[in-house]
Amino acid sequence: MKAIIHVSLKKAILDPQGKAIASALKTMGFDEVEDARQGKVIEIMLNGKGDEARLRDMCDRLLANPVIEDYKIELVA
Amino acid sequence: MKAIIHVSLKKAILDPQGKAIASALKTMGFDEVEDARQGKVIEIMLNGKGDEARLRDMCDRLLANPVIEDYKIELVA
Repeated sequence: MKAIIHVSLKKAILDPQGKAIASALKTMGFDEVEDARQGKVIEIMLNGKGDEARLRDMCDRLLANPVIEDYKIELVA
Repeated sequence: MKAIIHVSLKKAILDPQGKAIASALKTMGFDEVEDARQGKVIEIMLNGKGDEARLRDMCDRLLANPVIEDYKIELVA
């Protein structure tokens, strides 16, 4: 079983890395770019069935900073 | 229009950050974890319709390192 965890900054939090990407793309001539935001994805290979409560625990304690980040857990067979 | 770009290390490339995550989770008692890999997601807000060829160009030139990374482009309305 595999869990895919998407971690992104909360909407209200400024994302300087995303801003840098957007500005670099514009400088390179990609004028259609309005804004960009960067997040991370963590793929976890699990033995046995994934337990969503335990995965949420992993996110809260290690993988994400719940103060400034949101996360989404996706379980794939 | 929004483009979501998933960038991940190629399968054959060692991912030390993923290994660190897996080992930290195991140390914390999450014994079901076998391995982990970390990638990034870039959300790009576009004005007008997203052109996939131009998005591929952005990936090859700035967002991913095609030598060691794979990317996947997803267009969302």
